[in-house]
Amino acid sequence: MTTTIVFAPDELARQLNVILQAWGMPPDQSQSTVDIMMYADLRGIESHGLMMLPLYDDFRRAGRLNMAPTVKTVRDRGATVLIDGDGGLGHYPSQLAMRAAIQKASSLGVGVASVRNSNHYGPAGAYAGMAAEHGLLGLSVSAVYRPGIVPTGGKVPMLGTNPIALAAPAKRNQMFSLDMSTSTAAVGKIKLAKLHSKPLPSGWAVDEQGAPITDADEGLRIRYLTPLGSNPVLSSHKGYGLATMVEVLSTVLSGSSFAPTRDRLRPGVSSMDVGHFFMAIDPSFFREPGEFEDDMDALMEALRLTPAIDPAKPVQVAGDPEHREFQKRSAHGVPVATDLVEMLRQLAKASSADFFLEAIA
Amino acid sequence: MTTTIVFAPDELARQLNVILQAWGMPPDQSQSTVDIMMYADLRGIESHGLMMLPLYDDFRRAGRLNMAPTVKTVRDRGATVLIDGDGGLGHYPSQLAMRAAIQKASSLGVGVASVRNSNHYGPAGAYAGMAAEHGLLGLSVSAVYRPGIVPTGGKVPMLGTNPIALAAPAKRNQMFSLDMSTSTAAVGKIKLAKLHSKPLPSGWAVDEQGAPITDADEGLRIRYLTPLGSNPVLSSHKGYGLATMVEVLSTVLSGSSFAPTRDRLRPGVSSMDVGHFFMAIDPSFFREPGEFEDDMDALMEALRLTPAIDPAKPVQVAGDPEHREFQKRSAHGVPVATDLVEMLRQLAKASSADFFLEAIA
Repeated sequence: MTTTIVFAPDELARQLNVILQAWGMPPDQSQSTVDIMMYADLRGIESHGLMMLPLYDDFRRAGRLNMAPTVKTVRDRGATVLIDGDGGLGHYPSQLAMRAAIQKASSLGVGVASVRNSNHYGPAGAYAGMAAEHGLLGLSVSAVYRPGIVPTGGKVPMLGTNPIALAAPAKRNQMFSLDMSTSTAAVGKIKLAKLHSKPLPSGWAVDEQGAPITDADEGLRIRYLTPLGSNPVLSSHKGYGLATMVEVLSTVLSGSSFAPTRDRLRPGVSSMDVGHFFMAIDPSFFREPGEFEDDMDALMEALRLTPAIDPAKPVQVAGDPEHREFQKRSAHGVPVATDLVEMLRQLAKASSADFFLEAIA
Repeated sequence: MTTTIVFAPDELARQLNVILQAWGMPPDQSQSTVDIMMYADLRGIESHGLMMLPLYDDFRRAGRLNMAPTVKTVRDRGATVLIDGDGGLGHYPSQLAMRAAIQKASSLGVGVASVRNSNHYGPAGAYAGMAAEHGLLGLSVSAVYRPGIVPTGGKVPMLGTNPIALAAPAKRNQMFSLDMSTSTAAVGKIKLAKLHSKPLPSGWAVDEQGAPITDADEGLRIRYLTPLGSNPVLSSHKGYGLATMVEVLSTVLSGSSFAPTRDRLRPGVSSMDVGHFFMAIDPSFFREPGEFEDDMDALMEALRLTPAIDPAKPVQVAGDPEHREFQKRSAHGVPVATDLVEMLRQLAKASSADFFLEAIA
């Protein structure tokens, strides 16, 4: 088992900010990036928060991540916006994009914003949630910098774990917040199995011949993931189709690179050139004020009242576990595994940034 | 095994038209409905074509289907449209809705149309495909008149098999066309197993205690379906989340009924009150002319070239099997199972409609 150290959310955010700025990121962009990373770490979505920093460090050292990008709106017409991320991290341009989509939706009922030439953008649900905070329906999907999902019938990964997030506001309830990768299991779950020295359930990962593997080390090393559905009999073609849908909306619509052919087909492009998609819809264009939120409450409450197989484990609605974790961590601090704390210390040291984190528990 | 009789597509369409009109449907609406039914039967999506007629007949006899609805645009503002189906079948208002979304997208880059107080609308892919035929990205999702999917951890179905369809145009290739239910297996596949007296694969259907069942008769009788993912270990909460996402976009946004609470919460509503969602996006608002289609070709061709586990079974892209079937059936006719032909004959007779179908093979 791993031991953890608990930090105050504000202190953790300040530490992440200092590191990103030591890497050359302008303060407004680093604040924006840290907001999204903390969204993840406050909700127990560890795989998309500070745990990503070493990878970002690898990218920038390899010259594939622009730490001081000039993010530009390159098109703005009707209900649509296209933003160029200039090869930087995705968090900052993605917040601009969702804000633009929200603004469009407020005047036209719907807004779509697309981001090209970006990189990892953290948890998709953070952007969908921005719209729901404004009383709108929010949707975000994104391509990923490397392929992980093996198409049904194939032997090598071609699509990222391409997430889908939808958020919708309610009144009595916390917002509905779906945020899922289109693979059977996220990479984070495989890391967790490895961390706890447990075998992988059959159906999460495959080897180079397409056969299921259950060794967590092997699974993480090869990193060939099944699409949601897991195998052809249980309709993995649907998960594969969803991952492709996300690729179309993120990569093809924005004019970004398709990861498996990026380095071959776009030799002049040094960035990871990832694309994202954002949409906001204003329910007040369809319903009388308050009706949408009332019906969201009714829907979520009806689902939670579904008779449960195990009465001690009531049926949940997308977002429930993350809302609970957010309450807890906001009040009592964010637990960080000791090896991740050490990683932060090393990253700070390597870039001559202050390291000042102190445990609160 | 079942025997089939092959009919010319035009004749089959004419026969369906005559029956729907004998039921009181105005000719423009019946033509529109038959176009969508034939979309299904020409592509091998039998479960959503003429096979649905007996259910439509049940609905109308039970007073839950308005055969001569006054379909009205009740809202039209910005990039959004809301259409009321007046308790009729979904095919006709849904075509109006997708046409409205296409028109909005042509001037504003994106259009969203919502349909309320509707019923079954056939294959979701038909509407997404309308947008792709116009060079646009098309998306459609829909609620279903009855619950079929059991939420993860629950014992009774709460959500319809809520389909998701996305279509995107290409140049050298037929359009990308994803059309999938959010259950592991569609009801049609269970009917097929029963027809061929085969057991159901474990993981498609469950009994009233939430345990997997493999008896096809039982599976079809109980009709409790697992969400895509099939079980908690293989992430059925994702399929459940997707089905809920579809319910939010279809039911809550349009102001339609949530099927499990419809008859209790909306006692004045005699129709099935199903909601649908349609979106069109014009790629020319994001890319230079032709770039989107070129990249769709590149994406689809790269996916088909994924090294295959079995070289005799190349990797496919969503829509490939349906495109092949369409070519075949357009040229050689539509095979219809003999018991379905008999069903058509009986339906025609019961409503004093001509029955004139003659086999071409």
